[in-house]
Amino acid sequence: MSVTATDAAALCRVLDGEHHEVKERIRAILAERFAPVSDLTRDEYREQVMGWMRMLVETGETKTMFPREYGGGGDVGGGIAAFELLGHADLSLLVKCGVQFGLFGGAVQHLGNEQHRRELLPQVMDLELIGCFAMTETGHGSNVQALGTVARYEDGELVVDTPDDDARKDYIGNAARDGRLAVVFAQLEVGGEEHGVHALLVPLRDEQGRVLDGVEIEDCGEKLGLEGVDNGRIRFEGVRVPRTALLDRYAKIDEQGDYQSPIENKNRRFFTTIGTLIQGRVSVGGAAISATKSALTIAIRYALRRRQFGPPDEPELPLLDYRVHQRRLLPALATTYALHFAQRELVGELHRSLTADEHPEREQRQLEALAAGVKATATWHATATIQTCREACGGAGYLAENRFKALKADTDVFTTFEGDNTVLLQLVGKELLTDYKQRFGDLSGLEMVRFVGEQAYETVVERTLARQVATRIADALPGGDGADDEGDLDDPELQRELFCWREEHMLSGLARRLRSGLDDGREQFEVFNECQDHLLAAAQAHVDRQVLDAFASGIDACDEGPLRDLLDRLCRLHALATIERERGWYFEHGRMTGPRSKAVTRAVNRLCAELRDDAELLVDAFGIPDAALAAPIAL
Amino acid sequence: MSVTATDAAALCRVLDGEHHEVKERIRAILAERFAPVSDLTRDEYREQVMGWMRMLVETGETKTMFPREYGGGGDVGGGIAAFELLGHADLSLLVKCGVQFGLFGGAVQHLGNEQHRRELLPQVMDLELIGCFAMTETGHGSNVQALGTVARYEDGELVVDTPDDDARKDYIGNAARDGRLAVVFAQLEVGGEEHGVHALLVPLRDEQGRVLDGVEIEDCGEKLGLEGVDNGRIRFEGVRVPRTALLDRYAKIDEQGDYQSPIENKNRRFFTTIGTLIQGRVSVGGAAISATKSALTIAIRYALRRRQFGPPDEPELPLLDYRVHQRRLLPALATTYALHFAQRELVGELHRSLTADEHPEREQRQLEALAAGVKATATWHATATIQTCREACGGAGYLAENRFKALKADTDVFTTFEGDNTVLLQLVGKELLTDYKQRFGDLSGLEMVRFVGEQAYETVVERTLARQVATRIADALPGGDGADDEGDLDDPELQRELFCWREEHMLSGLARRLRSGLDDGREQFEVFNECQDHLLAAAQAHVDRQVLDAFASGIDACDEGPLRDLLDRLCRLHALATIERERGWYFEHGRMTGPRSKAVTRAVNRLCAELRDDAELLVDAFGIPDAALAAPIAL
Repeated sequence: MSVTATDAAALCRVLDGEHHEVKERIRAILAERFAPVSDLTRDEYREQVMGWMRMLVETGETKTMFPREYGGGGDVGGGIAAFELLGHADLSLLVKCGVQFGLFGGAVQHLGNEQHRRELLPQVMDLELIGCFAMTETGHGSNVQALGTVARYEDGELVVDTPDDDARKDYIGNAARDGRLAVVFAQLEVGGEEHGVHALLVPLRDEQGRVLDGVEIEDCGEKLGLEGVDNGRIRFEGVRVPRTALLDRYAKIDEQGDYQSPIENKNRRFFTTIGTLIQGRVSVGGAAISATKSALTIAIRYALRRRQFGPPDEPELPLLDYRVHQRRLLPALATTYALHFAQRELVGELHRSLTADEHPEREQRQLEALAAGVKATATWHATATIQTCREACGGAGYLAENRFKALKADTDVFTTFEGDNTVLLQLVGKELLTDYKQRFGDLSGLEMVRFVGEQAYETVVERTLARQVATRIADALPGGDGADDEGDLDDPELQRELFCWREEHMLSGLARRLRSGLDDGREQFEVFNECQDHLLAAAQAHVDRQVLDAFASGIDACDEGPLRDLLDRLCRLHALATIERERGWYFEHGRMTGPRSKAVTRAVNRLCAELRDDAELLVDAFGIPDAALAAPIAL
Repeated sequence: MSVTATDAAALCRVLDGEHHEVKERIRAILAERFAPVSDLTRDEYREQVMGWMRMLVETGETKTMFPREYGGGGDVGGGIAAFELLGHADLSLLVKCGVQFGLFGGAVQHLGNEQHRRELLPQVMDLELIGCFAMTETGHGSNVQALGTVARYEDGELVVDTPDDDARKDYIGNAARDGRLAVVFAQLEVGGEEHGVHALLVPLRDEQGRVLDGVEIEDCGEKLGLEGVDNGRIRFEGVRVPRTALLDRYAKIDEQGDYQSPIENKNRRFFTTIGTLIQGRVSVGGAAISATKSALTIAIRYALRRRQFGPPDEPELPLLDYRVHQRRLLPALATTYALHFAQRELVGELHRSLTADEHPEREQRQLEALAAGVKATATWHATATIQTCREACGGAGYLAENRFKALKADTDVFTTFEGDNTVLLQLVGKELLTDYKQRFGDLSGLEMVRFVGEQAYETVVERTLARQVATRIADALPGGDGADDEGDLDDPELQRELFCWREEHMLSGLARRLRSGLDDGREQFEVFNECQDHLLAAAQAHVDRQVLDAFASGIDACDEGPLRDLLDRLCRLHALATIERERGWYFEHGRMTGPRSKAVTRAVNRLCAELRDDAELLVDAFGIPDAALAAPIAL
């Protein structure tokens, strides 16, 4: 049953959910006031991006995500959802907005005090003050706690210094050209005591744009993509700022020059500080999904028009009639839908966390893990899918006008910035282990890990019911090799059980290995490193289950009817394609058989063939304005 | 046992094999006369590439691959091997050389007559005459037989026309700026009869570079990469060229205006014509491998220097000490070595085919399939590995100076030009089926496919011995889950058997499915389309086995000693990583067990750890001159 007659606009509304209105406003802005550029020099491109930002300020949309009391729209979720759509237009614009409003503005909002907010946020929203988020250094990326920049308290002031080349701030957006004020992350020293990494405001340029004394800025030069963003390197030499420049939500220096913090544990203070900056990470995941949607829209429309080969003496066939072409594009489309719903749920959670009166620590940590997992998964999916889409368009895909040049180059860094994906998945994995610990009491350090090992094992053993359901997969075996025995594979309950079982089994196995390594008396670091691949796989299994659940929840909220049926089918394709990808693991753990595995492949093929005629509707529903999509082969 | 003390130069010599001398000459040229460029306008870059080409002409190296009787060096293999090294320097230079010497010069050499060669080849080698290879059209890429351009014989001349937009020649290198003469592929019509696609010489510009009457040329504009190559679109309107412009090795028009060909079958004539152009495809595979080597050299050197995280209170550790980082880079390095040897063997075969007095049809077809398979595998491996290497270098990898920008963008089109990889693997698959047919007699068409089905099935059934060896894998089962039971997995014989078994089983299964589909009376095209994913998988399994064999042969030719031991270990890593990747399939077909599969993963981990200290030597042995590598993070 095909639903091609149904309006793509209705499906677009389902996808947008509660943010439909703000998204429609942004689509209208893109349709009327945007056109992609090409072949500009770097300077021209940077100027163009600033021009677009000023245009967005004029529309008032840049205020949406900020609190009402400072002149904002009071809708964080809406602001982030709207921001994602810029990913269809120009990713330099998106990233520069992200630096200005999300990172710089976000740091002021979440790490500063009332005075910082009242003074700065209105200027941030209006672009009167352009800022930087100066965290990363040349020698210190993922390991933020090891930053080298120093802020030393002396005589009522903070003195900022870059001690060596490794401590040079690097890749900083807005630094090379436009930034006047930076949020600088530095090792805070007060009265000879080191307090770890803190954020403070350091001016970079005066109102005329001249670089200030003691500050040295270098342009990062040509990059792989995002050439419209002015990334730069910054060094500080004895730059003095007032004591009040410290963004002091979690730690103050009082008038007597004494350091005070409501969070005693240095480590915990650090992670609390960093945790408030989650917004940037969430936005990158959303941007990656938008770029993926653009790529799929172009490749699927092209695949429906471009003909090549075919039966003898007949017209050539559209590419999407070929099985391999379907397999390259349609499971990727299904997973993009799944990630869309996961991202929407994440934005909702973030909105609730930022607007709630209080947000318990465990929920905050789980939100951070969800953000990390979705970001890593969505950005790797973007890199792989955009590449597949480019190839699916052949030579036409290699022409810049068809957009893959920008889509590939500009999204490439997403996998490693705002948290390297590998490090983010480790964070997810460690949160999974910590969560076990939290459930069973506050054991610390090495003891925790041992305990986790036992608990995880027992927890899994106890989940007999879930296991029994999962065991159906192995038990309900069909007859012969190649027979038509897809049976209950189409059952979403069974698919979910397979996801859950993989998640739980991987985690318990991991915990067991860690415990056994530590029991042997080996160094904790060495034991963890030996299990690093296992840790990442467990984290991925966890995220996969979360993403599937988000897709299912999204469908549950949808009215009965052909659109819901279509989404159901798409969700089954996503689930089965994931199971097919992981079938080696299921076999390894006795939850897959040869005939069953072949049936999974057949089911994926069948679902692809069934969805072929809905493919155009499914990409139309992304609602990408023609002006933003712009690719001649897809209009 | 580490061999870090051994000289990388010795290993480089092993890799270069018989082409060491010519490769060393090119390395010296790159070291002394080359430096990568960045931040040029498109026009400046194109001019720079022409400058480099003139520099290469000065050195005399552009003559190497052409026959001695026309002033060449008479060494096709050496010429192609040397050409590959340009892939370390600048891929626009490599591709523009490929168009000029490989495609344009190659077409003149292999499709023209003595007069064409004597007149044109000296000018081609000296860049006095710059040419185009005008095959692809806007609407016709992979399906060359469906080209729309027409060459009609009229009154002793050939009249060339572009009937519609789809028939416009597109993406043609050297067309937008430099090309004066084009080899144009067109549908030949003589006396009202259509003879299919033929190649003829059509002038595009006069000596002053003015476009000639009846020719219309458009610049393709901004591309994803290879911006130093002037790709363009060409239309012809009533362009008249003499009868002798036909490249007439396989078909002539005589003075009376009669069409004559030594190959009667139109289809066979077409494929014979196209088959002679294999050189371009071979060169692309080589270029992809060179680019992969550059990326791995940069990422591995960086991973040995860049430190991040580590045990508490100790210095941070180099990235390559982490298991996941090893797993990302070292199996890819092993596979790059495997592909290096496969490419070397392919170049050797090509050299023999072009210098032999005769080359039997079956051998020619097998050479074409090998070229297609290695090209597809090497270019996909390049795309994936360069991406992984970029990510492994984090933010530093995103800076253009560290080369990934160019490596990614310029190699991207390799997967779809000179034969789309998906189409090429189909060609390999069809050759596998045809080969069965050839072995058992000349049955044609549908009957052939049915016969193939039976034969393939029986062939496999008969190979009991091979199966028995392979069955060891399943039978020799170790004890419990997680036990240290890698056993004979390290045995290259056993690894090879697994590759062979997959190859044969996939092919026989494919033949069986095709036969059964046709037995049901369904359309041949539909049946093939339903098995398309299976066909590609069978082709990949075949290529994988060929690549493994080439690696093993390369090692066999190496003297006993630590270098050979090192290559042995690398070959085992390549083999086991491939088996690990395909473990789902082995499970499906009863040739893998849970404990065995886990042992494969452990063996891959162990080999990675063992090879960690040899990684620098292994990339140094690629012998990439610093001037060409150029990435500051890797020098």
